[in-house]
Amino acid sequence: MSFESYFPVMAQLTETQQETLRKGVVLRHIAKGTVIHRGSMDCLGLLVVRSGQFRAHIASSEGREITLYRLFERDVCLFTASCIMRSIQFDIIITAEKDSEAWIIPPKLYKSLMDQSAALANYTAEIMGTRFTEVMWLIEQIMWKSVDRRLAAFLCEECSIEGTKLLKITHEQIADHLGTAREVVTRMLKYFQTEGLVRLTRGNIEVLNEARLRQMDT
Amino acid sequence: MSFESYFPVMAQLTETQQETLRKGVVLRHIAKGTVIHRGSMDCLGLLVVRSGQFRAHIASSEGREITLYRLFERDVCLFTASCIMRSIQFDIIITAEKDSEAWIIPPKLYKSLMDQSAALANYTAEIMGTRFTEVMWLIEQIMWKSVDRRLAAFLCEECSIEGTKLLKITHEQIADHLGTAREVVTRMLKYFQTEGLVRLTRGNIEVLNEARLRQMDT
Repeated sequence: MSFESYFPVMAQLTETQQETLRKGVVLRHIAKGTVIHRGSMDCLGLLVVRSGQFRAHIASSEGREITLYRLFERDVCLFTASCIMRSIQFDIIITAEKDSEAWIIPPKLYKSLMDQSAALANYTAEIMGTRFTEVMWLIEQIMWKSVDRRLAAFLCEECSIEGTKLLKITHEQIADHLGTAREVVTRMLKYFQTEGLVRLTRGNIEVLNEARLRQMDT
Repeated sequence: MSFESYFPVMAQLTETQQETLRKGVVLRHIAKGTVIHRGSMDCLGLLVVRSGQFRAHIASSEGREITLYRLFERDVCLFTASCIMRSIQFDIIITAEKDSEAWIIPPKLYKSLMDQSAALANYTAEIMGTRFTEVMWLIEQIMWKSVDRRLAAFLCEECSIEGTKLLKITHEQIADHLGTAREVVTRMLKYFQTEGLVRLTRGNIEVLNEARLRQMDT
């Protein structure tokens, strides 16, 4: 599949603009675990995900983390090009969670096209709106939901992303997604186990009753 | 002062677009306490604040609240026109905290100009970036900072907004700003009082040592 099919707004650009974009864009393989963006000093460019999975998170000075959102195939990452907008003044970290492929649009190139094309500028605003919606959802979760409900929702989400009920994930990793302490996750997972919702084995969590986990989150 | 001076991006529109905007915009007085936007069903239009003060917050189904950000003179509120962007899918509430004046740009009019003008579309994205930055700051506060430090920062901010050290605000209102319980605020204010940081009187909080409160937040 070509870049165009992953970046449909391209059809709204002029022939010349399309040509500039086509020439400037670079397809990159990004190995699992690679940190592609850390803080507002980095400005790699816009990322159009061809395959794989990325995680956007923030971290405290003490090393605590919380996941903001994930990016999958066909998602576009604007914040890896944060220098194109001066109002974006926050530090997020974006990491490949799986071996991934992404097209990189250089920031200067994208900025110059955005300055010319109302369609592209509006598209960019829509992408930011999508991330804004995800982050607002997160605030509501943090503010109004208990950690057990958030853990239940997270386990269901992981099953759906991975397409399996046997999750290879550590308690520490889950804590970093949810922004809580490892001990809290361990305690709750043990409680979930006594309730027959999950089975815990070394390095694995097997989801036994996804339906009841989903119910917990409603 | 004219609308143009509060909405400088206007200079980048064509004469015809400027004329359309000038004709469509409406100056409104908004009384203190008025809820001008509640949830994504409302779509009053873009708000350009001429004077006064607005508060954007979210609320849980149980009535708990947390302030997302405030809007002051010359700020532009995009989310009162959330229908102009389909990716904005969250419910926030925007209330006048003081008697205010604002120009309202009707959503359809704004959308049609945004579709024509790259400058206006980029400006809109920048406004969203500014709010995104404020909301990311809030997440960091909620996640990594204790409530006593957030309360200290809030009191200093109020002193600076109101231009006085005698704050007329209830413990309940502070709790709604910070997203915590009234009891927590009362307990901490009493502790601040024993430390000589504030003096509590009926319906008032007098800040005695702003420098030390500011220090708490660093």
